[in-house]
Amino acid sequence: MSHAPSVPTLQESPDGIRPAVRAVPAYPFTPIDAAIKLDQNENPYDFPAELKALAAERLLLRPWNRYPDLHADELRRRIAAYEGWDERGVVVTPGSNVLIKLLTELAGIGQTVLTVNPTFSVYTLEAQLLGANLVQVPLQGDFSLPVAALTAELRSRPPGVLYITQPHAPTGHLDAERDVRALVGAAPEWVVVLDEAYHQYSASDFRPLVRECPNVLSLRTFSKAWSLAGVRAGYALTSAGLAANIQKLVSAFNVNALTQAALEVALEQPGYVQARVQEAITERGRVLGALRDHPTCQALPSQANFFLLRTPDADGAYRHFLSRGIVVRRQDRLHLLSGCLRVAIGTPAENDAFLRAVAELR
Amino acid sequence: MSHAPSVPTLQESPDGIRPAVRAVPAYPFTPIDAAIKLDQNENPYDFPAELKALAAERLLLRPWNRYPDLHADELRRRIAAYEGWDERGVVVTPGSNVLIKLLTELAGIGQTVLTVNPTFSVYTLEAQLLGANLVQVPLQGDFSLPVAALTAELRSRPPGVLYITQPHAPTGHLDAERDVRALVGAAPEWVVVLDEAYHQYSASDFRPLVRECPNVLSLRTFSKAWSLAGVRAGYALTSAGLAANIQKLVSAFNVNALTQAALEVALEQPGYVQARVQEAITERGRVLGALRDHPTCQALPSQANFFLLRTPDADGAYRHFLSRGIVVRRQDRLHLLSGCLRVAIGTPAENDAFLRAVAELR
Repeated sequence: MSHAPSVPTLQESPDGIRPAVRAVPAYPFTPIDAAIKLDQNENPYDFPAELKALAAERLLLRPWNRYPDLHADELRRRIAAYEGWDERGVVVTPGSNVLIKLLTELAGIGQTVLTVNPTFSVYTLEAQLLGANLVQVPLQGDFSLPVAALTAELRSRPPGVLYITQPHAPTGHLDAERDVRALVGAAPEWVVVLDEAYHQYSASDFRPLVRECPNVLSLRTFSKAWSLAGVRAGYALTSAGLAANIQKLVSAFNVNALTQAALEVALEQPGYVQARVQEAITERGRVLGALRDHPTCQALPSQANFFLLRTPDADGAYRHFLSRGIVVRRQDRLHLLSGCLRVAIGTPAENDAFLRAVAELR
Repeated sequence: MSHAPSVPTLQESPDGIRPAVRAVPAYPFTPIDAAIKLDQNENPYDFPAELKALAAERLLLRPWNRYPDLHADELRRRIAAYEGWDERGVVVTPGSNVLIKLLTELAGIGQTVLTVNPTFSVYTLEAQLLGANLVQVPLQGDFSLPVAALTAELRSRPPGVLYITQPHAPTGHLDAERDVRALVGAAPEWVVVLDEAYHQYSASDFRPLVRECPNVLSLRTFSKAWSLAGVRAGYALTSAGLAANIQKLVSAFNVNALTQAALEVALEQPGYVQARVQEAITERGRVLGALRDHPTCQALPSQANFFLLRTPDADGAYRHFLSRGIVVRRQDRLHLLSGCLRVAIGTPAENDAFLRAVAELR
């Protein structure tokens, strides 16, 4: 990643552009070419070849000149069946980051977006762009939820959106269920988002809680455990009432023909997911174990498909990994995370390469 | 299309939901199964089979487990080359309706969205959902732009977004370039959107004007002339400065692997587009000509791939067409459009079927 300047000239930015958008810097991302990509928490394995072929076959049978169904109804039915959920409570979008934008539109604009610090950057970016009052409460030193401080915020402010990530990104921390329940109990008028993007890697599941509370939703994705980041699909599980309101904000025909074909195939033959999740969990244990005695770096415990590596010099470590063909993500500028890099769990061979590279760090 | 009730219960709508979202009814759309679909202004021909196969082949070679590039940079370059545009001034999203949402986020929230009446429903829906002050000036009786009245609104209000559709939907009217230029000249501080979704069918092209004015953008789509509605892709051509600000609002990785593969193939072999557009224009002339002497219905002139049919009884005519296996779109509740149905130009055989059905209407 490098910082590329974006230089819109003054006359190219008409006054009509809202100050909140103008104030956000252009996203300074330059993709890094590296043999081993451990920087985006992706599944290291492609969608199985036979399922890809099957999805492509179906795709070829469908008309590309026709709009897809308005709200991906067939796909919503299939996700509902897979999750044991009422289909009226399922909303699908091209990526869960789109759902985060829509949730900010639903209950954030001119209202409060409450989350912790550090947190997933899309929550805070959309809050800033859309003119929400963004409130971030620092995580505790052990990365657990600051339940008392969040409860105080929930009680003192008019309602908006509360984001709780389980397991948390970028720390990989999973909270005690009683803590999450305590927060949900303090927020009956808020739209409460339990972001479960990585829940397969922590074997956690907040569906029972979501079922009890019509104002709460579980946000899930096909980008991690399902190996489908390139296909773009995320979804919400919630009450029919909340779903109907979110659905108003979803652009018509938002889920395209490929996404529908690929997800249908994945949901019919989901067997590949569990094996890959199990391997990632085993590899996570192996990598963290191997780093236990590192002289200068500390690998922090994680319940996700990534972990934080605390280094004495994040910039130096980042460059060292890159020189070995490995790209990771810097997180060292975030609250509580000085010196930290975020490292995804890759294939066993990729993890071996990472361990060789980290052993060279002194 | 029928109106299906949506019944969120009260306790399922937490107070945190913004009143503007709550106030919008759930989209009452039920898809109609009909042999001849003339209700969505789609291209009646599928993307060419050999190009579909080529796109699927490329798609299979790409990893589906990896995120696509952040802002579809390669695709932006190719669209820029095709359009003769600076790539820094191109923004791509999964459908131009997504761009309309983002433009409302850019310059509509808490500001003004100005357009005509009737107009494309997505402009007004997003304005309502996102809390813009929506101002609609009635079209003139001949469907031309109310230049003086719009100019008065532009001068009396703080800036926001102005939507001008050329050719206009749902009337199919193309305005004189001097009228469009007059409006753009009165709106230097506004974000001015020239929606050119149907421009191939009117042989009009506002790129020269957009090139002169950094606050203006041309909105274009792959859903009509390109036969790719199912793939979802729309784009803006504008100045680098305005594009950089819009891009901040585009969700990361928004354009998926299929869309990228299909559009790359289409842009490499765009020859099919012109032939189809030419046939649609020829067929439009034939259909409108055949309706000239209809005893009770009047087909209104159009520069798009659809036209308005003014009937003495829109509901009866709609049901009559449906009984003949043809679905069209009712527009009779819109300002100036009493009795009107919107009818897309189909294949010659579909148009023949439509003409037979309309001949039965008395």
